[in-house]
Amino acid sequence: MTGTGAIRPLPIAVDTMGGDHAPEEIIAGAVEASREHGVGLVLVGQAARIRQELERYDAVGKIPIVHADEALDMDEGALASWRKPRSSIAIACHLIKQGRASALVSAGSTAGVVATSRLRLKGQQGVMRPAIAVTLPTRPRPTILLDAGATADVKPEGLVQFAALGTAYGQILLGLDRPTVGLLNIGAEPGKGNKATKRAHELLSGGGNHGIEFAGNIEGHDLLSGRVDVVVTDGFTGNVALKTMEGTIRTAFGEVRETMTTGTAARMGALLQRRRMRDLRDRFDPDTYGGGVLLGLNGTVVIAHGASRARAITSACELAHRLAAGRIVERIREQVALTRTSRFGRRTHGERDSTEEPPPGDLGSVQNGSVQKQP
Amino acid sequence: MTGTGAIRPLPIAVDTMGGDHAPEEIIAGAVEASREHGVGLVLVGQAARIRQELERYDAVGKIPIVHADEALDMDEGALASWRKPRSSIAIACHLIKQGRASALVSAGSTAGVVATSRLRLKGQQGVMRPAIAVTLPTRPRPTILLDAGATADVKPEGLVQFAALGTAYGQILLGLDRPTVGLLNIGAEPGKGNKATKRAHELLSGGGNHGIEFAGNIEGHDLLSGRVDVVVTDGFTGNVALKTMEGTIRTAFGEVRETMTTGTAARMGALLQRRRMRDLRDRFDPDTYGGGVLLGLNGTVVIAHGASRARAITSACELAHRLAAGRIVERIREQVALTRTSRFGRRTHGERDSTEEPPPGDLGSVQNGSVQKQP
Repeated sequence: MTGTGAIRPLPIAVDTMGGDHAPEEIIAGAVEASREHGVGLVLVGQAARIRQELERYDAVGKIPIVHADEALDMDEGALASWRKPRSSIAIACHLIKQGRASALVSAGSTAGVVATSRLRLKGQQGVMRPAIAVTLPTRPRPTILLDAGATADVKPEGLVQFAALGTAYGQILLGLDRPTVGLLNIGAEPGKGNKATKRAHELLSGGGNHGIEFAGNIEGHDLLSGRVDVVVTDGFTGNVALKTMEGTIRTAFGEVRETMTTGTAARMGALLQRRRMRDLRDRFDPDTYGGGVLLGLNGTVVIAHGASRARAITSACELAHRLAAGRIVERIREQVALTRTSRFGRRTHGERDSTEEPPPGDLGSVQNGSVQKQP
Repeated sequence: MTGTGAIRPLPIAVDTMGGDHAPEEIIAGAVEASREHGVGLVLVGQAARIRQELERYDAVGKIPIVHADEALDMDEGALASWRKPRSSIAIACHLIKQGRASALVSAGSTAGVVATSRLRLKGQQGVMRPAIAVTLPTRPRPTILLDAGATADVKPEGLVQFAALGTAYGQILLGLDRPTVGLLNIGAEPGKGNKATKRAHELLSGGGNHGIEFAGNIEGHDLLSGRVDVVVTDGFTGNVALKTMEGTIRTAFGEVRETMTTGTAARMGALLQRRRMRDLRDRFDPDTYGGGVLLGLNGTVVIAHGASRARAITSACELAHRLAAGRIVERIREQVALTRTSRFGRRTHGERDSTEEPPPGDLGSVQNGSVQKQP
């Protein structure tokens, strides 16, 4: 269903300066996305360096370049968004604001990318806080989890909005009309949880038709079971859960590998299974299951892993293209409007300014500004 | 170091009515703990039924029995603690209060055990909120994580107290003078996290000598790396992280098993490795790495998994014995006192009544009551 009837989207702005393997692998992945998958691109970064890389692929003049002098360092956090107004990410955001690009792809530091895009793109009308959506490698189809770390402290009403963001994203990514949404919690029953999840459960269960197919609470052990299409949680819990999953998989496979290479019999087995094990590990490799998507701003931001190689960048470009073609920003507006017209939505609106504190040193004022335009 | 110089502790009260395999497996495990490990016990539950089981082991008259009519059902939550004042868990708590037992072991529903013991044993002097400590199967020694789910909403000062509880527990369980403590967070740098962890980091880093060997923030992927001895987090995040870990391990091993039984070559490998894989899985089996321990009450409560079989109950009895011999309650008092005499400790004390809301329908008043006895 994605892109059906949509006009050809604007190009995707690719930050060639962010990531451990920038610019070589970033540009290699971008060229592949452009050539093999027909994704329209603009490359942002040091023009001479980009041209030099494009020469290797005989692609000079085939992909437009927009020059940017500065890059955010991988260890730079939120403050860099203020210190470097001409960074490649800032310039890419500028292209979106000018209507010259529809989305941006970066493998830069997550904190830097999030802060810069919040500052430059601003929060989408009606959205209290942005969230990073990631996909978990479940079968038969992936599970979307948000927030993976954009907003650490989230009010119950913010969790409801995340459910709306996740629904819009799920419609495009999974091709489902009404993806099911679970609330990550510490028990299956409605009364379980901390204050925020208890209240969010009430809001999501009651309130009538708010466009969200709420499936109730889910627990940590369900994250990889594929029980729901979208898992909603605050950015603190989501980030801890994701990193716990990554660490556990690394430990478990490390143990299996060790087991397999100890003893002659086991070593024989290991040889026989090496290829299969590799396939398996790849399914859990963040590089292949794609980066996160920052949702809720005036423009779509795909954040690839810092360690991304060309293949991951190609996937990220394709994902950005798909989301732009699926009009993700408009869909989010529609979904959030549905939650806002319901009973609890109105309450959320009235309470927001007093209950939602701006993040320290961050874009609170911008967020509030965009919110106050609301009728 | 455990138990050195300690007088022989009071017996451990075993709830024979809690758990999926009660009373058979509970009593079998208890008999083993008594016979093979010399743990002094009192069995609490339906006396006739217990006697009948003890006959199978020729142990009638060798382990004291205290009758209790009622059991908490496995799906009963916190309210059961009020509805059933004569439940086996309530009676076991009563034995501790009367000085007839030093600790209790139950495989009953965690919510029911926690609520009943909070109600009956009451919060230990000076401790704001209890926490469940569990051990993660890291090598060379286990890592302690708390809170695994007793207190979902925790203030920064509560997290500091959990660090003190974990330190006391680590001293006994791991035999270390100053176990290192990490704060579970979403970034390694001090400024990262939600409001509670940011403030807790400040409190734990500053404040001078408060008896805690603070090692800074750790992230989800470090939980199984053994980087620190004790991981501190709120009960919501801790519970999600633990269940995520369990679910991930189950998924990963499921995949490996599937991989190993697909194709002739792989099947051969599987036969060769079956035993090794089983050993490995066991390391991550909650039954073998032991139950949780509820810390911060006037008595030690070991909560075994609901699915516990005899072996897990034996381990739980041994653990309870070891903690009682190590004077865990006194050690916690000492550790918490250290945090309270430091600058931030005093502030915590002054603020507590206003900032700490009692849990809904729970033991807030009891907690506050015990707290107000403080000088």
